[in-house]
Amino acid sequence: MSQFTNVSVVKQANIYFDGKVTSRTVLFADGTKKTLGIMLPGEYEFGTAEKEIMEVLAGKVDILLPGESEWRSFDGSGSFEVPANSKFKLNVHSVFDYCCSYVAE
Amino acid sequence: MSQFTNVSVVKQANIYFDGKVTSRTVLFADGTKKTLGIMLPGEYEFGTAEKEIMEVLAGKVDILLPGESEWRSFDGSGSFEVPANSKFKLNVHSVFDYCCSYVAE
Repeated sequence: MSQFTNVSVVKQANIYFDGKVTSRTVLFADGTKKTLGIMLPGEYEFGTAEKEIMEVLAGKVDILLPGESEWRSFDGSGSFEVPANSKFKLNVHSVFDYCCSYVAE
Repeated sequence: MSQFTNVSVVKQANIYFDGKVTSRTVLFADGTKKTLGIMLPGEYEFGTAEKEIMEVLAGKVDILLPGESEWRSFDGSGSFEVPANSKFKLNVHSVFDYCCSYVAE
């Protein structure tokens, strides 16, 4: 059972797309931030501010990264990186549990 | 922005009802546990093992406690207690953000 230890968690959820996408913010002692989130099946587009590393914890999802024309498929594991100040698309096929790390550059 | 500090968070989500109900487990230094969760609109019944204190962080929800015949309504705030080893019903009208505290007796 993988855990983040010695962290702070913001009580209130981040809620998008009428609750089809939600996440909780986890703050680390070194000043970095991750969100632990859920996306229900559907198609989404998100914009990034900082660089993001998305880790797939569960679920089937296809993603389209900026500047790419081919979708990448994930099923329950793996990760992908999204550049800062860009947009990416997701096609979620089953409940997608993820961990998003925000990387300052 | 209310936070829990110096805690551990289990990475993997708890997923129920096809993802319409999800939560993250937060572990405290004193050995106690809370979950931070989201319920999408719908009707649910849950069983408790330990006593639970449910705090409403956001959303409109009606709840029916065990042994009661009248539903109680919450809109974005308040809390209710559910006895150990019992069942309670929820009728969620808008995205329900909650904090559930598990109380050993």
